[in-house]
Amino acid sequence: MTTLQLFSPSGVIPQPAQVRLAAQRLKSLGFEVHIDEAALKRCQRFAGDDDIRLAAIHRVAHAAPSVAMATRGGYGLTRLLDRIEWKRLSRSVEQGTRWVGYSDFTALHLGLLAHSGATSWAGPTAMEDFGRPVERGGPDDVTVSCFTEAMSGTLEAVGFRTDTGFDGLGLRGTLWGGNLTMLNSLLGTPHFPKVRQGILFLEDVNEHPYRVERQLLQLLQAGVLQQQRAILLGHFSDWRPSPLDRGFTMKTVWSHLRSQLRVPVLTGLPFGHVPTRVTLPVGARVSLFVQGREAFVQW
Amino acid sequence: MTTLQLFSPSGVIPQPAQVRLAAQRLKSLGFEVHIDEAALKRCQRFAGDDDIRLAAIHRVAHAAPSVAMATRGGYGLTRLLDRIEWKRLSRSVEQGTRWVGYSDFTALHLGLLAHSGATSWAGPTAMEDFGRPVERGGPDDVTVSCFTEAMSGTLEAVGFRTDTGFDGLGLRGTLWGGNLTMLNSLLGTPHFPKVRQGILFLEDVNEHPYRVERQLLQLLQAGVLQQQRAILLGHFSDWRPSPLDRGFTMKTVWSHLRSQLRVPVLTGLPFGHVPTRVTLPVGARVSLFVQGREAFVQW
Repeated sequence: MTTLQLFSPSGVIPQPAQVRLAAQRLKSLGFEVHIDEAALKRCQRFAGDDDIRLAAIHRVAHAAPSVAMATRGGYGLTRLLDRIEWKRLSRSVEQGTRWVGYSDFTALHLGLLAHSGATSWAGPTAMEDFGRPVERGGPDDVTVSCFTEAMSGTLEAVGFRTDTGFDGLGLRGTLWGGNLTMLNSLLGTPHFPKVRQGILFLEDVNEHPYRVERQLLQLLQAGVLQQQRAILLGHFSDWRPSPLDRGFTMKTVWSHLRSQLRVPVLTGLPFGHVPTRVTLPVGARVSLFVQGREAFVQW
Repeated sequence: MTTLQLFSPSGVIPQPAQVRLAAQRLKSLGFEVHIDEAALKRCQRFAGDDDIRLAAIHRVAHAAPSVAMATRGGYGLTRLLDRIEWKRLSRSVEQGTRWVGYSDFTALHLGLLAHSGATSWAGPTAMEDFGRPVERGGPDDVTVSCFTEAMSGTLEAVGFRTDTGFDGLGLRGTLWGGNLTMLNSLLGTPHFPKVRQGILFLEDVNEHPYRVERQLLQLLQAGVLQQQRAILLGHFSDWRPSPLDRGFTMKTVWSHLRSQLRVPVLTGLPFGHVPTRVTLPVGARVSLFVQGREAFVQW
């Protein structure tokens, strides 16, 4: 029996019906779904105050379900980082729990990796993926199948079309990363994992290219990017051009980054604030290889 | 004779007439104004490519005018930080140059402080302050008089109305800070100054309170805020509320910060992306004292 708990470590759930719909859909996929008692709490923009959300995380860790999935992202984990008992979470991972989410949840993935080395999963959330209404297309097929296969342990790789120029590339390293803004919000703190020879994947939303570049250059100036074996770029979506850009685009950023860094920078990873999002093991040892323009991340 | 050079280390100047207007107005205040040869260059969103902007900074440092003022902020200094020859800049400071700007220029203030300990000045820029058209009210009187007095060395303190509860406060420390996003963009890099027992001032623009809070908590988790003697908050302007806020405002952020920190946090500093902006010495040893609700920063 694959048990799955939905809990809310970050933002408030504006429409509880979406979480119930997500629970139904996850049930029909074969999961035994439990909605945490505090999942629908409200406190300003948070799903309950800090104590409530922290208790929910620890409660889920204690229950150690097969899957612990965030209802949504938003903002909230930053407030809890210094208080999370990471040992409790890593113990649940040892018991088989797969912690799943993205966006704000990047703080949990990376904090867990920094404090315990345990693996967790970058993937869907209840509200944004399984709760998406039929009118908006419902859950994305690739997202759903990738998630269910990853949770059952049958998924062992994801593939995607990348840039030319990397044919024959093959390397191994620790896969880590997630949302760029969240990753950078941990720099200088004890919650930032020190990963050397890693494969770093990044995505972001609502961030103008100049802000994405500034964050990437911070990672460069902090010595983080140079220590990686590869950088995988997902979607950087929903930003608005400015009249001052005059040709400065996300492509300019990738090209500037490549001019400053010898590490291969591959675009095209299907991950980000977009409907089609693969499920990836954060903290796992993986292989990256490229055949022609097809890239594969295998674990 | 007080010489003043205008130069462009960051964003492109969309309307050169504004820089010329700023130069005229600065002349009428008694400055001998020189516009750097590359100040109006254009390369995408930058005032010339990286080499051009870097050369301009070094050229101004070599000329060592009384005042070296940025034409505007924007984005661009981040790209140059690893290449700026900080010794050249600190030598100009020894010769009497006061480097002035704000926003993106925070990177120069803090990089200079980190690498050399030299003092520079948070204050107006040519375009945003002295270039403001008459239709938009022209230059702000307080900004202008504060700047001219600071540059002539006659200004020795700025005062502002702050919160209740700090009457009688008196302490000394190194004044540092500027734009919060820029300050945080240096965390983890060699350009972040290690200031202990300092007086940290902060402002930001277009940043939602949850993003301001996330950045402040990063400074807290990185151990920076606890090492200060006081935090001075300027204006946090032009952010848009979200329907999800449900009562979460900038005041919530200040109150959460105060609940996490024993260091006094004072609001009301007239600094930020607003017309009235005082000129402050970054890196100088200052006194902070409060009488009733009137706070003073004295150097």
